[in-house]
Amino acid sequence: MSNIRHALSVKRADDFAQWYQAVISEADMAEDSGVRGCMVIKPWGYGIWERIQRLMDDRIKAAGVQNCYFPLFIPLSYFAKEAEHVEGFAKEMAVVTHHRLIAGKNGGLVPDPDAKLEEPLVVRPTSETVIGAAMGRWVQSWRDLPLLTNQWANVVRWEMRTRMFLRTSEFLWQEGHTAHEDRADAMRETLRALEMYRSFAEDALAMPVIAGEKPENERFPGAEATYSIEAMMQDGKALQAGTSHYLGTSFAEAAGIRYQDREGGQQLCHTTSWGVSTRLIGGVIMVHGDDDGLRVPPAIAPQQIVILPMLRDDDGDAALLDYCEQLRSALATQHALGEPVRVLLDKTPGKAAAKRWNWVRKGAPLIIEVGQRDMAEGKLAMLRRDRLWNMDNGKPAFEFLSREDCTSRASSLLATIQQGMFEEARTRRDGNITRGVTTMAEVAEFFAEDKRYPGWLEVQWAKPTGAVLNKVVEQLKALKLTIRNVPMDGTPVDGACIFTGEAAVERIYIARAY
Amino acid sequence: MSNIRHALSVKRADDFAQWYQAVISEADMAEDSGVRGCMVIKPWGYGIWERIQRLMDDRIKAAGVQNCYFPLFIPLSYFAKEAEHVEGFAKEMAVVTHHRLIAGKNGGLVPDPDAKLEEPLVVRPTSETVIGAAMGRWVQSWRDLPLLTNQWANVVRWEMRTRMFLRTSEFLWQEGHTAHEDRADAMRETLRALEMYRSFAEDALAMPVIAGEKPENERFPGAEATYSIEAMMQDGKALQAGTSHYLGTSFAEAAGIRYQDREGGQQLCHTTSWGVSTRLIGGVIMVHGDDDGLRVPPAIAPQQIVILPMLRDDDGDAALLDYCEQLRSALATQHALGEPVRVLLDKTPGKAAAKRWNWVRKGAPLIIEVGQRDMAEGKLAMLRRDRLWNMDNGKPAFEFLSREDCTSRASSLLATIQQGMFEEARTRRDGNITRGVTTMAEVAEFFAEDKRYPGWLEVQWAKPTGAVLNKVVEQLKALKLTIRNVPMDGTPVDGACIFTGEAAVERIYIARAY
Repeated sequence: MSNIRHALSVKRADDFAQWYQAVISEADMAEDSGVRGCMVIKPWGYGIWERIQRLMDDRIKAAGVQNCYFPLFIPLSYFAKEAEHVEGFAKEMAVVTHHRLIAGKNGGLVPDPDAKLEEPLVVRPTSETVIGAAMGRWVQSWRDLPLLTNQWANVVRWEMRTRMFLRTSEFLWQEGHTAHEDRADAMRETLRALEMYRSFAEDALAMPVIAGEKPENERFPGAEATYSIEAMMQDGKALQAGTSHYLGTSFAEAAGIRYQDREGGQQLCHTTSWGVSTRLIGGVIMVHGDDDGLRVPPAIAPQQIVILPMLRDDDGDAALLDYCEQLRSALATQHALGEPVRVLLDKTPGKAAAKRWNWVRKGAPLIIEVGQRDMAEGKLAMLRRDRLWNMDNGKPAFEFLSREDCTSRASSLLATIQQGMFEEARTRRDGNITRGVTTMAEVAEFFAEDKRYPGWLEVQWAKPTGAVLNKVVEQLKALKLTIRNVPMDGTPVDGACIFTGEAAVERIYIARAY
Repeated sequence: MSNIRHALSVKRADDFAQWYQAVISEADMAEDSGVRGCMVIKPWGYGIWERIQRLMDDRIKAAGVQNCYFPLFIPLSYFAKEAEHVEGFAKEMAVVTHHRLIAGKNGGLVPDPDAKLEEPLVVRPTSETVIGAAMGRWVQSWRDLPLLTNQWANVVRWEMRTRMFLRTSEFLWQEGHTAHEDRADAMRETLRALEMYRSFAEDALAMPVIAGEKPENERFPGAEATYSIEAMMQDGKALQAGTSHYLGTSFAEAAGIRYQDREGGQQLCHTTSWGVSTRLIGGVIMVHGDDDGLRVPPAIAPQQIVILPMLRDDDGDAALLDYCEQLRSALATQHALGEPVRVLLDKTPGKAAAKRWNWVRKGAPLIIEVGQRDMAEGKLAMLRRDRLWNMDNGKPAFEFLSREDCTSRASSLLATIQQGMFEEARTRRDGNITRGVTTMAEVAEFFAEDKRYPGWLEVQWAKPTGAVLNKVVEQLKALKLTIRNVPMDGTPVDGACIFTGEAAVERIYIARAY
């Protein structure tokens, strides 16, 4: 409806990139820190990350993986070792060279030349090497295997062009690292982590994803196989939202992770690694946000229900706050999605309408407003963030209900919203995957510049390798496209490879990507 | 009893420092990382930290404080600002000067001279400055106050002599930072955090502490008042286990944290900060550990009950595992100390006796062993870690009970152990505080070198300041002593100042310290 006045000044359709920044700012999720490439994650953004951590950590622990903590700093020599066996080794890293500051000649502080480190330290871009060294110490025998470790940590990869949550120099993540007796067990773990990510993305984030294997050229350097979950953003681009790697024995060889097998022989371990990061929050924004701001799926909402008393600065306020507090505590005894309902009574100063729009922009799933008249009638006004507008009159779609009805319906309503958000995103995703394209000319046409949100192509290919694959990658790169992954579902193929004309062996997704 | 064969090779009484390292190693809590001053925190040690985080975070959130995340790196200029207004500014910090590695002339990798940062970045030793800058942006009006933030993070302070958990270059902590309208509100928050730490230490860690104000010379640089909780270790030394600072307006002035007051005038905020760290784990070891290893209070034990099936590699094993699994799931439905009981069925390979001693050294509160004969009789053997030995025969004090009795008693038993550990520690602490000493000669005598575990002295003083205090501090330093704090309980004083002979105004604790 054209008469709806949306809460954001930028609409998705007008400028998706600007809209993205506006959501982060208007939902008060994060801001520039003044430190190049680093952001400040504010309470609402960090609260979402805490929810993601909690739910993911439960899944990680349920799989028998144990959390550890490894050093922030990694000696330069560890990377030299890795650089030898990994082609395309990434070198953009923060390097610590001094351990003291002194007063400079021209005022201010400078690194003390007398406190130069003998060996520079690298701020971890990932902990592969230092965890590998630890595993080398910890693993002696087949009895020590599988060794299943995980770390929640900050990591740093120097980035020239950053974007909040999607690409920042410092980011937060979890990195799982495991060691196994053989390929089969390591591959089982690699795919277990992949499936954990898929179900987490879909169940907790309400974000439909395609789980699949990355093509050879997109493998983690040194890995034998890399798998990912790929989500479609509302601009049709793909976001790689999590990866899981089977590393073969090359990392074990570099780090000396060996075990005595059941027959007394010495064997190299097969290792895996897998991770997701604060990038997931960027995905949540771009999958669920709308022209009124963020919409947070109830499972990861720091507050699922926000109660706003319409205070009038008069004698009635005390009774109204009391009424709202009773509502809050009644709702807090309910359970939704397997956990106690998270409900906030927002008593901060300010007009109720202004506060309403703040919570709309933040994307709290349910907003409840209570005025003195509502109280007198034992009622309240409820707003579903996922069904914000009454399309008939262009006004917020408040539903009026009794306090008892509200309390008894809250749990199922939150579950309905969670499920509805997933289905909405899946329907949109599925509607924007196009099949049947069989030539590169059609690919170019499909992604032509004037088509704003083309979505993804699902095509068939013969899984070329080496030089043939490189040529394919170059062709796609010229169109700003990448192969996302080969879906795990293995639907049969029946046509020719779009690149080589040979008989196709599997399907792949082609898309623009973040 | 001399016929007890303890699980550790080093006894507390023989070499407390070596014993401390032995506990960490034998309980598999942490190890050297190969990176100077940084440790690897292993699953059992990190599991304890996760429990501490969870319980502390609940308390922090219950106080209305919101978690955020601030950058790891802080531009040098931020410290220059702080260095101006803070005397005794600590300068031992890790400095990032480059953002890329390249291949060196002699092989290996070196920092790329072309990627030198214009302004070096400091790895945060604390986030005071960067959070202050954010608060300066966030606070506009009295309506924005109080602003209550907290961060869980890693921080780095370059240390030449490190000791696991107690003093490491990198450590994990939480830092609360709050801004307030006036001194009264900021002081209220400072003392709220102090009381939160006191009750957390006593209720969760079973570690009795003295909450009090630090003397002027021990204040956080720039603070107007610093408070601490001080715990007594088993060697009689004090451990500062948490601090809370009232910072006045000086940090607000440096960072520009101003607000418009109710009358429209511009005011500086009054700020506070407060923190605890992985150091708490060092305290838990030195308060509760014994000659058999660690003893973990049930509230922070990653596993409260460990079930060990006595497998025989025969046909009976399957039924035994089934019996143990039924026991595990029955125990897991119980609640203790307000949470579901954490129980592990340890099916790892190895002899039950060897596994028992592993768990004794790790300090799991309850260890249950079940053999095929026990199963046939519907019984099990239970060992309380806090009452490990039968003093009559020098053997482990197993209690045999039915599975039903075990399940129904688990909850109260865990609560009893938690309370008992606290009372044992408090009795020891109180028994090692000596009062009535009134001269420095007696102080020197009390702490003379041949007295191994002298404990603390509680003396009276006139609260000298400035030069007089400095002389007192020097006198004490010559005896390797420090003033710990002035207890909050405010018992009346009636004597002369031990240092100046003037009328005393309060009591202080004097001790050796970590």
